[in-house]
Amino acid sequence: MTETFRDVRIKRHRTADATVTLTLDGEPLIGREVELEQTRHKFLFGCTGFEFADLANGTSADPERDARSAEQWEGLFNFATLPFYWGRFEPERGKPDTQRLLQTARWFADRGHPVKGHPLAWHTVTAPWLLDLDNEEIARAQVERITREVGDFAGVIDMWDVINEVVIMPIFDKYDNGITRVCRDIGRIPMVRMVFDAAREASPNATLLLNDFDMSAAYECLIEGVLESGIKIDALGLQSHMHQGYWGEEKTEAVLDRFSRYGLPIHFTETTILSGHPMPAEIVDLNDYQIDSWPSTPEGEARQADEIERHYKTLLAHPLVEAITYWGMGDAGMWLGAPGGFVRADGTPKPSYDRLHHLVNGEWGTPATTIATDAEGRLRFNGFLGDYRVTCQGRKAEFHLDEPGESHLAAAIA
Amino acid sequence: MTETFRDVRIKRHRTADATVTLTLDGEPLIGREVELEQTRHKFLFGCTGFEFADLANGTSADPERDARSAEQWEGLFNFATLPFYWGRFEPERGKPDTQRLLQTARWFADRGHPVKGHPLAWHTVTAPWLLDLDNEEIARAQVERITREVGDFAGVIDMWDVINEVVIMPIFDKYDNGITRVCRDIGRIPMVRMVFDAAREASPNATLLLNDFDMSAAYECLIEGVLESGIKIDALGLQSHMHQGYWGEEKTEAVLDRFSRYGLPIHFTETTILSGHPMPAEIVDLNDYQIDSWPSTPEGEARQADEIERHYKTLLAHPLVEAITYWGMGDAGMWLGAPGGFVRADGTPKPSYDRLHHLVNGEWGTPATTIATDAEGRLRFNGFLGDYRVTCQGRKAEFHLDEPGESHLAAAIA
Repeated sequence: MTETFRDVRIKRHRTADATVTLTLDGEPLIGREVELEQTRHKFLFGCTGFEFADLANGTSADPERDARSAEQWEGLFNFATLPFYWGRFEPERGKPDTQRLLQTARWFADRGHPVKGHPLAWHTVTAPWLLDLDNEEIARAQVERITREVGDFAGVIDMWDVINEVVIMPIFDKYDNGITRVCRDIGRIPMVRMVFDAAREASPNATLLLNDFDMSAAYECLIEGVLESGIKIDALGLQSHMHQGYWGEEKTEAVLDRFSRYGLPIHFTETTILSGHPMPAEIVDLNDYQIDSWPSTPEGEARQADEIERHYKTLLAHPLVEAITYWGMGDAGMWLGAPGGFVRADGTPKPSYDRLHHLVNGEWGTPATTIATDAEGRLRFNGFLGDYRVTCQGRKAEFHLDEPGESHLAAAIA
Repeated sequence: MTETFRDVRIKRHRTADATVTLTLDGEPLIGREVELEQTRHKFLFGCTGFEFADLANGTSADPERDARSAEQWEGLFNFATLPFYWGRFEPERGKPDTQRLLQTARWFADRGHPVKGHPLAWHTVTAPWLLDLDNEEIARAQVERITREVGDFAGVIDMWDVINEVVIMPIFDKYDNGITRVCRDIGRIPMVRMVFDAAREASPNATLLLNDFDMSAAYECLIEGVLESGIKIDALGLQSHMHQGYWGEEKTEAVLDRFSRYGLPIHFTETTILSGHPMPAEIVDLNDYQIDSWPSTPEGEARQADEIERHYKTLLAHPLVEAITYWGMGDAGMWLGAPGGFVRADGTPKPSYDRLHHLVNGEWGTPATTIATDAEGRLRFNGFLGDYRVTCQGRKAEFHLDEPGESHLAAAIA
């Protein structure tokens, strides 16, 4: 296979040339065959995990089906996003759905997958009972809500989309809601400061994101104002729902170019690429497109697989991108009924599933491989950043590749 | 004529119910007829005045024609915008066109018309020689340029579009230029701070504007960031070039609603409404539309007159709007060759000229009117805010209506 310019950059930013000196009982392990395997990517290959709440809570109607689904999920992903939409999490004030979601988050965490909560503040699907409060009370309820969730989930969820879609928040005019009222009243930057301060105080070491779908200069201006005001953002969240067609490399790279100017880590937080017909270009708010059936087609699935590969490669080639979260593994229950999953509604994988599986685990992964140490007991290989395990006669060593470039490590087999 | 909701608001925000007690030689002027006349509007009815440089400098090729043109200009306007495009003002470094422009500005100021300079910083038509400098030198040259112009013109020009089109400035990609380089390097808000600090220091009492064509949330976000950073903006400049069709009341009011949230005075800085066919909607950058001839048509002129009236009325009905600057009185030499003037290329007035003339001087003005004082020597009338003169037997008094609502004044005829 010939390497593209993009592949070269992926290798440069995502892999290390490792030299690992292995020892066994204090002696260098010279000229021995061992089994080397990458057990985890440093890069966050993420997906929503909303559908595993039943399985995690022992309330599944079909545990076998859900277990198969979980296996599919872990075949591609190592990072989950769970829903904290206030209107669903706490439809009645004072009765939050904490236990069930905590159990779901632990289910992922126990499998070694970090979890992100999405979102702590948003004008859409927010608590309807905010409308009964005055603006000061709404702001207080919002802050208390953040303090509570970030505190309750600390240690299980340590990454949050703190606030979602601030660009449109104060001018959102589809329906009245408490969050738009407050944001319009106090302004975008004081709003961001208020919610970030609350989250930061509740969990000083958590990773806190600002997230938006608006890829225009508006989001740039918002970010610049927020940063200029001294608010610390740990990562920028960029949505990329492509219901109206794949962006292509040029647009994606232009977006990366513009949003990398701040030197902040970038998460592609919400990605959708369809395997059916695209939504018409004249639709402005994606929510306005409602059809009875939106089928996944063979041609669409072939195209989707190619576009998924192109999108992931474009993003991995940029050094500031640390995470890609796909917005739904399966077509079943997908936002807007769109055929955007890796898995069809009947549970069978699409070509995109196999394609990404090959990339993540094959082209970019190191499956269990037999490899020999040299005369000084050294293992030399090029591997993607992440966690590795070496096995020799049933005994193991583990090590991590954390930074691209040359990496010299030692590992004792025990 | 029936009064519309808009007319009612114009009256509420733009007029005063004046009671003026007149005295002559220390005695109340009881039961006497006097002549009352508004000599100047408080509202700034502005226009570009680029074309009067020759007349003002005594270099006119046709002084009679230019004098007629000046008379037309003063029939509608009381506020001029003059060009400070750096690339034209100082095409060769160190040789600014100061004297000629100062003479032009004085010509307006001597006639009682305040003048605004446009713009002090902009990526378009900027000095080409900036490209030979490194970013630090460009920034220094920009600051020195501002210090020089604001200082040189102080007392004649005390209002400035300090910086133009910051939303697009760092991502402008049509051609390389020094200002985009610096803005991309240091960020939008530090750029705004740098140029405002320079202008403020050079003339602490000048009125300093931020100006943009981008009416989207991007400009809101920029403004919020700038204000949050503590930069003092005296007025917000909103462009309204309508080459692709009149906005209509709904869009204009939505723009006013969004940009009035900051409580800052609003200037509509650049207004164009055509009396010919509209530019096709698919053109994104207006500069891309280049045609050989763009005629003004009878139907277009009738429509333009109506739209001009609607636009001015919509703006005067909003209390925060303090100025409307039309972007060119005549079709001759208009930007893009568009038929957007009040006056045709042959110098004859269009219906829009007569319409605005009637509004400014008739419906909203007080032409010389005979009116009688009451038994206490009081003159009672409702008039638009601005300057007034009372004449009685060749002797005069002057007074000003500054605030809407009830106004009680005294004036001595001398």
